[in-house]
Amino acid sequence: MTAKSTKSLVLLGGGKPAAPARAGRVWLVGAGPGDPDLLTIKALKALSAADVVVHDGLVSDEILALAPAMARRISVAKRKSRHSYAQDEINRMLVAFAQDGLQVVRLKGGDPFIFGRGGEELEACRAAGVECLVAPGVTAALAASAAAGAPLTHRGAAQAVTFVTGHAAKGAEPDLDWEHLARANHTVVIYMGVSTAGPIAGRLMDAGRDPATPALIVENASRADEARIVTTLGDLASAAAGLAGPALLIVGEAMALAQASTPMIADLVSTAQAARA
Amino acid sequence: MTAKSTKSLVLLGGGKPAAPARAGRVWLVGAGPGDPDLLTIKALKALSAADVVVHDGLVSDEILALAPAMARRISVAKRKSRHSYAQDEINRMLVAFAQDGLQVVRLKGGDPFIFGRGGEELEACRAAGVECLVAPGVTAALAASAAAGAPLTHRGAAQAVTFVTGHAAKGAEPDLDWEHLARANHTVVIYMGVSTAGPIAGRLMDAGRDPATPALIVENASRADEARIVTTLGDLASAAAGLAGPALLIVGEAMALAQASTPMIADLVSTAQAARA
Repeated sequence: MTAKSTKSLVLLGGGKPAAPARAGRVWLVGAGPGDPDLLTIKALKALSAADVVVHDGLVSDEILALAPAMARRISVAKRKSRHSYAQDEINRMLVAFAQDGLQVVRLKGGDPFIFGRGGEELEACRAAGVECLVAPGVTAALAASAAAGAPLTHRGAAQAVTFVTGHAAKGAEPDLDWEHLARANHTVVIYMGVSTAGPIAGRLMDAGRDPATPALIVENASRADEARIVTTLGDLASAAAGLAGPALLIVGEAMALAQASTPMIADLVSTAQAARA
Repeated sequence: MTAKSTKSLVLLGGGKPAAPARAGRVWLVGAGPGDPDLLTIKALKALSAADVVVHDGLVSDEILALAPAMARRISVAKRKSRHSYAQDEINRMLVAFAQDGLQVVRLKGGDPFIFGRGGEELEACRAAGVECLVAPGVTAALAASAAAGAPLTHRGAAQAVTFVTGHAAKGAEPDLDWEHLARANHTVVIYMGVSTAGPIAGRLMDAGRDPATPALIVENASRADEARIVTTLGDLASAAAGLAGPALLIVGEAMALAQASTPMIADLVSTAQAARA
């Protein structure tokens, strides 16, 4: 941990800091998928030393409460916020705070470098000569597979895993290597794919992936309201219909191990099914 | 956290527990890449409630010290250990401890479900009717990219990331979809790829990936002795030669952002280079 607390810094009314004696810096911090217990200790330390926390809307109040009470919190979310910031506005904000001598934590859901646009913020800092450090986080796919009990790689069933996003830069259908993603024995994780579940499943099947391939949808991974749907590629679009929260789609043979609910309930269900059969 | 402490359990000489009043269970816990600060709080809680910790050789003493002093620690490592256990021996051990009523933590480097063989342990538990829960961890690729300041996905440079392993099941060259991995604007992370760096780089270039594609090698990611080498696909094999520790290879356009050492030193070097040019 190189970030040191600057709690002694006197903040004047309006949030303008007194001239600081030391350089500010930006920490890009992965907050993990939602459960505060899935924060890393490093993230916790960075948060507790923050003067300013610039956060996504998906970061929970419980996690934001871990920053010092006097730290300024700024939501740049697209969800649950009246305001929404363009990426270049966020970049400028991070740089400006750091140049004011502040310890800036840019708190992002999951990992900053997996579909988090952290690279763009890092580049903005470097261009401005501002120190930028990165604390990795548990990306949502890892939490979703852990909770479902379905490994992303698995001997004989998943020798590789690919993370893609269901959204293209301008809202169009993503330009992906469908033939590759359609290969068997390979797990495909689609972030932000709920609204494009139909076209994505169609492309994978058109490219030859078996409609019977097991699939898992996890909404609000690791949160109290996490919901899991165990389905197949062929039924993915209908299973995803109606989901509103942020969700991951995972397609692959290893998802055959996924459990829709807690292990004990799932066991009861399968026992009951076996008894009926 | 469902695991509850069983510290009150009386262990007799020889490690045989007194007949327990409650069921044991197995936690598959991701210890992260090495730095104890990259443990999650959930992993820390699971560890502190453990009766037995069954761990890989890569898990540091600093992390093992977080388990209760009276917890039994068993290394099943292939490294730094006189003993090495086959996967089915590990599976049987986990099940047997849980059936003895113990809280078993199977502590694995990185994430249990990314090349961690956690799926096999989970299946063994399920087959035996033993409850098995999973705590995800920061997989090495996330820590390596964070430290290097090079995102795994990046707008315009990496629209997807694929994790593969350099080792095939029987030590042969891995059977991967080289044509896909050779596509541009895509990050490929190769776990356990140091010994096969030459053949892997050759296959990628044969399949059409540009030898000038930026590449990063990270040895001992997140540890005090972390070493980073910024190179290209064409030079990957020679750059990897001589590395002994566990290392990741990362190939992709976004690795152009990678810094070989700390940002400040890297900046000095590039400034000096610019002055000479």
